[in-house]
Amino acid sequence: MDDLSPAARPPHDALKQDAQLWFESLRDRICDTFETIERELDADGPFADRPPGRFERKPWRRLEEEGSEGGGGVIGLMRGRVFEKVGVNVSTVEGEFSPEFRAQIPGAETDPRFWASGISLVAHPQSPLVPAVHFNTRMLITTQGWFGGGGDLTPMRPDSQDSQDAAAALHAAFAHACDRHDPAYYPRFKEWCDRYFYLPHREEPRGLGGIFYDRLFSGDAHADFAFTRDVGEAFLAAYPAIVRARMHRPWSQEEREHQLVRRGRYVEFNLIHDRGTLFGLRTGGNVEAILMSLPPEVRW
Amino acid sequence: MDDLSPAARPPHDALKQDAQLWFESLRDRICDTFETIERELDADGPFADRPPGRFERKPWRRLEEEGSEGGGGVIGLMRGRVFEKVGVNVSTVEGEFSPEFRAQIPGAETDPRFWASGISLVAHPQSPLVPAVHFNTRMLITTQGWFGGGGDLTPMRPDSQDSQDAAAALHAAFAHACDRHDPAYYPRFKEWCDRYFYLPHREEPRGLGGIFYDRLFSGDAHADFAFTRDVGEAFLAAYPAIVRARMHRPWSQEEREHQLVRRGRYVEFNLIHDRGTLFGLRTGGNVEAILMSLPPEVRW
Repeated sequence: MDDLSPAARPPHDALKQDAQLWFESLRDRICDTFETIERELDADGPFADRPPGRFERKPWRRLEEEGSEGGGGVIGLMRGRVFEKVGVNVSTVEGEFSPEFRAQIPGAETDPRFWASGISLVAHPQSPLVPAVHFNTRMLITTQGWFGGGGDLTPMRPDSQDSQDAAAALHAAFAHACDRHDPAYYPRFKEWCDRYFYLPHREEPRGLGGIFYDRLFSGDAHADFAFTRDVGEAFLAAYPAIVRARMHRPWSQEEREHQLVRRGRYVEFNLIHDRGTLFGLRTGGNVEAILMSLPPEVRW
Repeated sequence: MDDLSPAARPPHDALKQDAQLWFESLRDRICDTFETIERELDADGPFADRPPGRFERKPWRRLEEEGSEGGGGVIGLMRGRVFEKVGVNVSTVEGEFSPEFRAQIPGAETDPRFWASGISLVAHPQSPLVPAVHFNTRMLITTQGWFGGGGDLTPMRPDSQDSQDAAAALHAAFAHACDRHDPAYYPRFKEWCDRYFYLPHREEPRGLGGIFYDRLFSGDAHADFAFTRDVGEAFLAAYPAIVRARMHRPWSQEEREHQLVRRGRYVEFNLIHDRGTLFGLRTGGNVEAILMSLPPEVRW
C-alpha cells in the first residue's frame, strides 16, 4: 500500500504491529489461564482421572489466489477435561479482496487491498453446567480502518438462575469496559449482539448474549484500540471466573444429552448464519481455523 | 390457478394426485422395508439387545405468510438399532413464492403460485460399515412443471473396496433405471450428482455419488413421472441390499470415531451448501422436516 499518499492512509496503519502483538499476548494469557483451570479441577471432580489438557499450536500460512504469501496465523487447540474443546486462533493476513467481495467491505471498493489481525476463541466445556463462550477482537485496514469484536455466552439452560448469574457476570464485565470509553457503547453493542446471534429459522437466540461491535472508528484509532484491549481484559477477567465457579459440579446424563442437542443449534448458527464463517469459507480462508468453533460432540 | 387458460397449464397438472399418492406409497414401502431390516438383525449382531426400531410419524401443516393453509406433510422418524436415525418426509404444499424467490424459480417470474409434492429420505446407520444414504424425488408446478430427484451414498471409508462395492451396486441400479428411459440420463445425472454433492471449502466430494436431476421435462410429463418412479424403485431395490450385507458386522471404536467426524462433513454440506436446505429455511419451511437430515451424533 506504499504507493498511496500518506494522507490517504487510515490512522490504524501506525497500530499494525501493536495490535498484532496485543492479540498474540492476549492469546498467551488466555491459554495460560485455561491450562491453569485444567490443573485446578478437584481430585474428585468430573473427569479428574484424565490428565489436565494442554494447548497444541499449529501455524498456518495463507496464500493469495495467485500464489503469493498473504500472512497466516496459529491455531491453538485444547481438548481437555474441563474444556472439552477450545480453539483460539490468532491471525494476521493481508492481500486483496476478490471483485465479488469488494463492494461489501468498507473502503475496498476503490482499492481491494486489506490487512487484518485478530484473535478468535470458542470454548465448549465438558460440563453442561458451564456455559460455552465465543470471543474475538480484530483490527481491519482497507483504505479505511476499524476495530471489531465482542464476546457472548451460550449456557445450555438459558432460563436457569445459574445461567442468568453467569450471563450477568459477563455482561457486567463488558458493560464496565464499555462505560470507561463511551456510555453509549454497552447498550448499543449489547443490542447488536442480541440481534446478530439469533437463529431466524428457529426464532431462537443462540445464547444469553454479550456484546458485538464492528466497523468501529470513533475518530481516534488509539482510543478504539484501547477500548478493544479493555474488551479483551473484561473477557479474561470474567469468563474464567464463570468456569471456576461451575466446573467441579457433577452433572446428569440427561443434562449431557440436552447439552449435545443445544450444541446443534450452535452448529446451525455458525454454518447457516454466521457471516464470518461463510465469508471465510468463500474467500478461501483456513478451513481448520474457521471451523475450529464447531462443538466436539453434537446430537440432532 | 383456475383462472389460467387450460392451454397455459403444464401437463403436470393432471398428475398431481397420482404423484402425491406415489410418493406416499413409496414412503410406506420404504418404511416397511427399513422396519423389517431392524427385525432381521442377527441375535449376536451389534445392539441386538435393543428392540427393533419403528417409525414414528408426525404430521405438520404449512401456513402461507398471510396465514392461509398451504398444505403440509408427514415426517417419519426412526431411531433404531440398525438405523441410528432415519428420516422420511413426504409433503404436498402449495402457495406463492415471495418476491425475492420468484426470479430464481422457473415459471414463477410472472405468476408466483406453485404446487409441489415429494419424498425425501436420509438414513444414518449405527454402523460405520454401512453407508449413509440420501434419496428424494419430487414434482413441482408453477406455470411450468417438472420432476427432480436422485439418491447418493456416503460411506465413511470411501476408498475401501467394500464402499466401492456398495457404491457400484447403487450406481448400477440407477443406471439401469435411467437407461430404460434415455441413454443420456445416467451419465448426465451421475455427473450432476458429483458436481452437486461437493464441499468446495474442503475440496472433497460428500460421498460416492449416485444420480441427481432437477427441472426435468422431456416434453412428456407421463414419461418423466414413469422415470421418477423407476428411480424410486431402484433405490428401494438397491439400498436395503447394501444395508443387509453389512449390518451384522462388528466395528471398532476407531471406526465409530471416524464415522462421527465424517458425519461432520455431511452437516457442513447440508448447512453451508445444500440449496434445498437453505431455500427451505429461508422460505419458512418446516424446520424439523428440513433438518431431519442431520446426523444423530457428530464430532468435530
